[in-house]
This record gives sequence, structure tokens and C-alpha cells, in this order.
Amino acid sequence: MKVVIIGGVATGPKTAARLRRLQPEAEITVVEEGELISYGGCGLPLYLSNLVPQLDDLRTTAFGLLRDPLYFREHKDIEILNHTRALAIEREKKEVLVKDLVTGQERRLPYDVLVLATGARPVLPPLPGRDLWGVSVLHHPEDARQLKDGLRQRNVRRATVIGAGLIGLEAADALAAQRIQISVCELQGQVLAKVFDRDMAKLLETHMVRRGIDLRLNCRVQALEGDEHGKVCAVLTDQGRIETELVILATGVMPRVELAREAGLSLGVTGAIQVDSRQRTNDPWIYAGGDCAEQKHLLSGKPVYVPLASTGNKQGRIIADQIAGLEAVFQGVLGTSVLQAFEWNMGRTGLGEEEAKESGFEIITGLISGHDATHYHPFHASLTLKLVADRSGRLLGAQVLGPGEGIKRLDVLTTLIQFGGSLEDVMGLDLGYAPPFATAMDVVIHAANTLENKRRKRVSGIQAQELWQRLGAEKGICLLDVREREEVENLPIKIQGVLWIPLGELRQRWREIPADAEVVAVCERGIRGYEAACFLQGRGFSEVAYLEGGMAVWAAYQE
Amino acid sequence: MKVVIIGGVATGPKTAARLRRLQPEAEITVVEEGELISYGGCGLPLYLSNLVPQLDDLRTTAFGLLRDPLYFREHKDIEILNHTRALAIEREKKEVLVKDLVTGQERRLPYDVLVLATGARPVLPPLPGRDLWGVSVLHHPEDARQLKDGLRQRNVRRATVIGAGLIGLEAADALAAQRIQISVCELQGQVLAKVFDRDMAKLLETHMVRRGIDLRLNCRVQALEGDEHGKVCAVLTDQGRIETELVILATGVMPRVELAREAGLSLGVTGAIQVDSRQRTNDPWIYAGGDCAEQKHLLSGKPVYVPLASTGNKQGRIIADQIAGLEAVFQGVLGTSVLQAFEWNMGRTGLGEEEAKESGFEIITGLISGHDATHYHPFHASLTLKLVADRSGRLLGAQVLGPGEGIKRLDVLTTLIQFGGSLEDVMGLDLGYAPPFATAMDVVIHAANTLENKRRKRVSGIQAQELWQRLGAEKGICLLDVREREEVENLPIKIQGVLWIPLGELRQRWREIPADAEVVAVCERGIRGYEAACFLQGRGFSEVAYLEGGMAVWAAYQE
Repeated sequence: MKVVIIGGVATGPKTAARLRRLQPEAEITVVEEGELISYGGCGLPLYLSNLVPQLDDLRTTAFGLLRDPLYFREHKDIEILNHTRALAIEREKKEVLVKDLVTGQERRLPYDVLVLATGARPVLPPLPGRDLWGVSVLHHPEDARQLKDGLRQRNVRRATVIGAGLIGLEAADALAAQRIQISVCELQGQVLAKVFDRDMAKLLETHMVRRGIDLRLNCRVQALEGDEHGKVCAVLTDQGRIETELVILATGVMPRVELAREAGLSLGVTGAIQVDSRQRTNDPWIYAGGDCAEQKHLLSGKPVYVPLASTGNKQGRIIADQIAGLEAVFQGVLGTSVLQAFEWNMGRTGLGEEEAKESGFEIITGLISGHDATHYHPFHASLTLKLVADRSGRLLGAQVLGPGEGIKRLDVLTTLIQFGGSLEDVMGLDLGYAPPFATAMDVVIHAANTLENKRRKRVSGIQAQELWQRLGAEKGICLLDVREREEVENLPIKIQGVLWIPLGELRQRWREIPADAEVVAVCERGIRGYEAACFLQGRGFSEVAYLEGGMAVWAAYQE
Repeated sequence: MKVVIIGGVATGPKTAARLRRLQPEAEITVVEEGELISYGGCGLPLYLSNLVPQLDDLRTTAFGLLRDPLYFREHKDIEILNHTRALAIEREKKEVLVKDLVTGQERRLPYDVLVLATGARPVLPPLPGRDLWGVSVLHHPEDARQLKDGLRQRNVRRATVIGAGLIGLEAADALAAQRIQISVCELQGQVLAKVFDRDMAKLLETHMVRRGIDLRLNCRVQALEGDEHGKVCAVLTDQGRIETELVILATGVMPRVELAREAGLSLGVTGAIQVDSRQRTNDPWIYAGGDCAEQKHLLSGKPVYVPLASTGNKQGRIIADQIAGLEAVFQGVLGTSVLQAFEWNMGRTGLGEEEAKESGFEIITGLISGHDATHYHPFHASLTLKLVADRSGRLLGAQVLGPGEGIKRLDVLTTLIQFGGSLEDVMGLDLGYAPPFATAMDVVIHAANTLENKRRKRVSGIQAQELWQRLGAEKGICLLDVREREEVENLPIKIQGVLWIPLGELRQRWREIPADAEVVAVCERGIRGYEAACFLQGRGFSEVAYLEGGMAVWAAYQE
């Protein structure tokens, strides 16, 4: 059997390697336009930040061999044609027309099965000055090499990142870590719009600004300006001119589908190649996977485009299984996305608030702040967690951020969501507990408990964003600060007329609260506020709530 | 409503606090024999190791208040009677007879609902010399205080821990970190018998010995010997005399059930108090939870005794809900246990190999070794993962150890097991991927893939333990080392007649392998061995396997 795979970075080599293990006799050929194959593109920001010293580290096996065409031939009996572009698929003849980019020669590769793993390319906005020196994307190892060489040679002190998505923030972090002054321009009103709801993004934005990032939201870049040598020297935006020596364009990626489109294969609504659960296109002899293919969202059932190496690897395995005649299907994705930047761990899984509403769910949401380990353990750190559930209590999504360990907790929730679990199911999880790893009631369980209390209407939480808006518009909301003196002095609520009664004095002093007031109890993270709200409800206050996430969240608003 | 709670450490205060939030009017009284309440007993080894500087840190809230009786009264309107022993439960009258240990006065506390949260106590072996100075348990803060004072005053250089369970290993680690020479005596043939199967324990044992621990398995301690001042100076065992200046007895804990037993409440087969899924004893007005109560194992359905603060906290919440008339049940446990010691993270969930067999499952097991992050990320670390599944592919248990992040991965598998998930379900999990957090194919997915390959009889793995035994007993097994030169030189296989063919040369040189040999392919972690085995199967070798976990596991055997 002849198998031709177009694309040599992630899904392609994975398909080839798995297929080789299953079918020792198959003839497997991988066609790759570039020189490099099987590299960890996700590691490029780490190379930029010097955490990964050499670019070759990204294409070396764990046991120290370079994954080049020779390696694939010798170790896996897989033929790699790099520097080779696939020009056309001739489906009738089952051939691929390819061109050797070194010699210029064209030839036809016959196939029994064809696999498209053509990946993605950066979206480049039609921006005047885009071709100036010092303007780059961060997509291919060559981009990273040039960027880094430029940094070294030119002693860059100011750089601008256009786009505040995953790659944009990773790039901004990598440069900021080298004491370069960074501006980030984002067209939308928030960072990481594909990862976070507005309220979670707000926390990250405040954190970035505290770290010295010049963050510009709702900012339209109009042009890039060059100096007399043709080097970029400024970014012109509707928020003014930003002096800069380097520009990274991080305005997203799009699937590479030209070959598929020209061959008459169906594309989906997302623009990526449409595949069934076996990763098969509308041609039964052609599979597609990885960043060029569309996925199905497990909760909404809708087609989505979430290009990720993890998904590409899974799909490569499934394609190989299918070719070898084994049963295997790709069920879909939850849109899990994670990143590390500015010393925070961040991510989401499942549906965000707006997405969930758009998909027809009636939802409730809860936001808590807590610790990833017992607070007496010296290495504990904080994290903020937002949960989205439907009215029946079924969990639909989770978002996390902070210096603490939140990513694997997100994985726990991902797993639960994939099984259709509810908030009550979260409470019942027998998660591992020891002081270095968790609190006795782990923060994900605490989050689920809190949202379940809200769902059962036991006590009302109010989110910082809503409170902020209502305080601006209404009178008569009584903010009750129940923290201890030292906490209040360290981080005061910067609003007139806050009533301060530490929780320990509330049972004596609750009559100081105006009986007809709408009370919002505030503490550091929400737990004491919740307790105060419970107490006041018991004393007959009818309109009482606590601030979800407490000052840990509120601080982002009042700054 | 009058609610009396006996036990003031974990489950008791949790029950009281939740109940207060649900029922502002309830009269809640907690009876505690000792002085201290609501302390993090699990943190005592951290105090011993100086990671937690003060004992009071273990009973301070995250916002800095000491959780003493005054705190509970002022903040939560909960009456704490410490220094007060519950002597008897008079179920007919619904009263508890208590004695003030300071004044000696006795009195009766009437209750509408009684909660037993009496906890556990250390099992003390009937050992001559047990009362010598310098012999201690590590259960109560007072034990820890005395131990640490002793260490400071006496400049201890040698200590012995009796028992290699969780507490024993945490204590040994805490002392070893202070450059004290540690002996660990364990009656059983392995460490952590309640956590690990034999093969996983073996890896930890080798690691401990490498770290300089004098580990004695199958070792029966016969007596403790004192010097002329009545201080312990030696441990006498059937493996000889061990000079020592300090002894920690860590031979397990047992539930405190005297009160319950004398009141005629039912105990379970484990010796702990029997409760239904509402945490109710056979007296409908008496609940029990935490370390004094029995749990149900979610997979075997059998009663088990796994005392943990996480379980106790969940149960306290459920008891409070029940008392307040809310629906809430405790489904059971998976026996998840985790710990950190000797700079390794370790744990298990679900059923171990033997337990699963005893529960009537026909099982398959797989062991892999991998990294917790991309190998090019500077902070990646290794971990070894063992999975247990039934023949249908349903996951039954997981065990993990190593310096890498394995604990939250265990939580992912815990979650999956609680939903009855299979190996195929693991493969389909949309786990978060970014280079600092995982490999593109996360190690739990890799483990599931590997075991699924084995289940489908695609290729055979052999476990180090079995190979070790068979090499001792049989001829004709050909060990094929497929690693690179540098790896072989750094860590050779210490057996005669190993055939060395790097994987990259195997396609040329496979005819060097005797055609009728039973081949076991060996690499660093199992991946290349697996690949070699696939290749040789394709070349007609009928008896071929790869060494699961590779040299990362084998090293423990040949040392």
C-alpha cells in the first residue's frame, strides 16, 4: 500500500510513525515544503525567551537524535521529501503532483491513501509597512531564528506585539522577560478573547499592566512606519503613535486549505477542511487532520477550528489506525487551551459564558479565588477559577488563571465535562490530597460547591464586573468589608461609604447595617463574604450577596 | 435544634461551620478532648522538616487568625468545649456525658442530633522499650513539638522510622532532609504497601537507597533498647541491631470507635463505624464521618478504611446538609492516596493489581515512563505511570511516581474512573497542551495508548519484574538493546550476552538476531523498544516483546 502524507511537522510524522508500527510493509512518503520536519512549533516562544537554547532542541528526540529525513528513514523506514511542494491532487488518478524546490523538477506520486496535514499559516492583516525590516510573525522556526538574531544584534529596547491571543501573549512575555519594553495592541476589548470571558481577561490585563506592559485594548493598528533604512520604527494606531524597534504580528492563524479546495474537497463553515469522525474528507481515499482540519465541539456539537498539536497528534494516530483497518474515531474537542505567560498559568475548557448562551444553554456562572496547596505550605500559590454550568447543574466550561497550579485542575474538569458531569459530581471526586498538592477541600471542589450553593439559591454571589457597573449607576448598595484590620489597611476598598465590620464582630454589630440596604459582603477571596451573607440572611436581610472572588478580583477593577 | 459534635480537628469543625451557614439558629457544640482544635494534622511532617516554621501555622486561617475556641465563637457562633472528654452516649435520653478535664466536672449535653468525628489514633505495636525517651509517634501536634525540640536539643545524627507507610516515609524524608542518617524498618516486603504494587514500590525503594536511606524490608522489630538514662539507643530487629538516637513509630492508624461501640452503634468489617451513604449510623440521630468512619470503595463496592482529611471534609459537609434537611450523599472513595517524599511525587487511585484480582476482575496492566512536559522545556521531569484495566478496557486503577508532575494526572484518571471510563476514553480526553505543562501526547494518554495496544494484542510488553525473574530461570531470552551509544555507555544493561543494535540500524542489521530467539527489546523508557518489537513482528519474529518502562525501570532491578 502506498500512503502519501502532505505536511511534515506534527500530524504528518505522527500518522507516518504510527502507520509504520501497524503496517511494516506500507510505503510511506511524507512531502514537506520546508527544510525542517517534525519540530515542536509550540516551543518557539521558549526559544525566543532563551528557555530553549537552540532551535535544534525543538526537533531532537528525548534521547538526543535530530529528527531529520535520515532519522525517519533509518529509524522508521519513512521516506521524507522535504523542500518539496505539493502542487495538486489528482483524485481521479490518485496521484499528487509535487515539485522539488531545489531542482525545480516536478513529478507525480501515486497513492492508495492520501493524508492532508498541511497545517496552518499566520493571518497577515493588510497593513501598510508590513514588509519593513523588523516586522515578523512567530510561526516557523525561521521566523524565530531571525527574530532572535535581530534581538541580539540590535540591542532592541522597545517592541510591539500586534494581537493579544495565545501566540501574542507568549511572544510578549518572552520579550518582556528580556527587559524589553513591550506594547501590545489588540483590536478587541479584551486579551485572549478565544480563551477567557471578559471578567477573567480583566484580571490578566491588570496583571500585565502591573508587570509594565503597555497594553492597548480596542486599538486599531493603521500602519507600520519605517525609518530611512527601511526598518520599522513606529506603529501607528487610532490610540496614537508607538515608537518601536520590532513588531511581532500575532493576529491569528488560518488553515492551509488551497490544495484541498482546488482538489474539490469540502471545506467547513470555519474554512478548514471538513472531515468525519474518522478524519476522512469527502473523498474516501483522502484523510485530513491537524491544523488544516475542522473539529467538532463536544458540547455545542458545532464545527470549530482550534488548531493544537495535541489534537493533531491524536488525529494522526486515528488516521493511521483507519488506514490500517482498525476502528478508531475522533470524538471532538472541548476547546481546551492553556498557556503560561507573565508567570501565570492560564487556560479554559468547554464553553465560555457567551458561547454557552449562543449554543442555547441557560447558564449560571461562579468565580472563586483560592490556593493550589495548603496555605501553610511554603510553595502554595493562588488561582482564580470560573465555572459555567447549566441550570440543571451540568458543568459546561471552566477558566483558570493565576500563579498557582490550575492547568491540571482544568484537565480534571475537562475529563468531567467529557463525561457529562455535574457540579455535584465535582464535589464527589476523590481527588488526591496531601499538603503540597491541594487543600483538604480542593479548589475545584470548593468552586463547584460555591456554584451549587448559588444554583440552589442558598446565597447570592455578585461578580465584580456587575458590582462595578451597578455601583456606578445605583445608590443604596452597602459594601460591607468583613476583613481584618491589617488586610483592610494593606488593600482598602477605594469607594466612599464602605462599612467595615470584621467577620468576628458581625454577630455583635450587625445592627449597624441599615435594615433596608442591599448588602454586598466583601473579603479577600469570597469565603468570609459568603459566611457573612449567610449570617445576614438569617438575620432577615432580604437583599444580601457576597463579592465572588473577593478583593483578589476586585483589585483589578479599582486599579 | 441542638447539635453536639464529638471531635474538634477536621470533620467536626467542618460539619459545624457548614451547618452554621445553613442554619443560623442551630445550637452547635463541639466537644474536643485535647486543647487544640481545627489543625492541619497532615502538615506535621512539614513542621518536622522546617518547611512549616511554627506549629501554630497549622491552625491559622489563610487570613492570619488562629482557629481557637474564641475564633469559632466569634466568627461562627459555634461553642467549642476543648479539654473535654466525651465519656458516654446515652442514646435513649439523647444525651452525651462529658467530663471537663481541667476541673474534673462531669455534665450531660442534650442533643437532637449527634455527630461522631472522633478520628483515628496510632496503632502501637506491643514492643518492649516503647516507652523509652526518644520514641515517638507523629500523630498529634504535641508529638511533633516534642520530636522537633528533641532534634534541636540533642543534635540527633541517627534516627529510625518503624513502618514504611505514608506517615513513615514523610517522617523519614523530613529527617533525612536535615542530614540525619535514617533507617526505615518495614515488616512487609515492600514500602507503601497500601499505595503501590510491588513493581512500583521497587522503583521507590531503589530511589530511597540511592538517597542514602538504610531501608530494611521484611524486617521484624523485636525491641527497643535504652541507655542508662532511659533514652532509646538501639532498635533490635531480626536483621540485627540498629544504633539510633530517635525512633518514630509509624505503624498505621486505627479508628477511634470506643464511644460508638459502647453506645451500641454498629461497626463495620474494617473496625470503623458503619454508616450509610448519608453518613448515618444505625441510630438515625447519630451521624459519623472522617477518620472514625468506614467508606465504601466505588469500584469494588466493598467497605474500606482510608482515613483522609479530604474525605473527612466532604463528609462533614454532607452531614451538615443532612441535618439541615438537604439532599446529599457520599458515594464512596477510590482510595486515592498521594504523598511527596524524597523529592518525588507519588500516589495511587482505584484498585491495585492484587486488589483488582481479589475483587474478581480479570486485569491487564501496563507501565510506562515519560516526561511531564516537552523534553526541550528546561523544567521537564520524568514520571512512571502504571495503569490497571479490565479485559474490556475499563480503567480500574493508576499509580504514579517520580520527580515529575504526576499527582494532578492521577486526579484526571480518578475522575475518569469515577465515570467508568475506558482506556479509549483516556485517549479522547482534550487535555490542555502547552510545552510547560505536557507533551503534545500527554503521558497519561501515552500510557492508555500503550495498554490499549497490549489489550488488543498488537504487541507484547514485559514488565521488569517478570523479565528479571525469567532471566534468572530460563535460557534463550535475547535482550536487544536498541539505544544509542552514549546511552548504553552511561547506563549499561548489566547482563551477559545483550545484543546491541541501535534502533536506527535495526532495519539493516535485524538478521543478526537469532531467528528462533525470544526477543525483548530494551530502550530508555519503552518507546523505541516498542517500535523495535513492532518491526521485528513484521519480520516474522513470533516471540518478541519490549521492556515496559525501559531502563528507567530496569535500573531499579539491576542495582
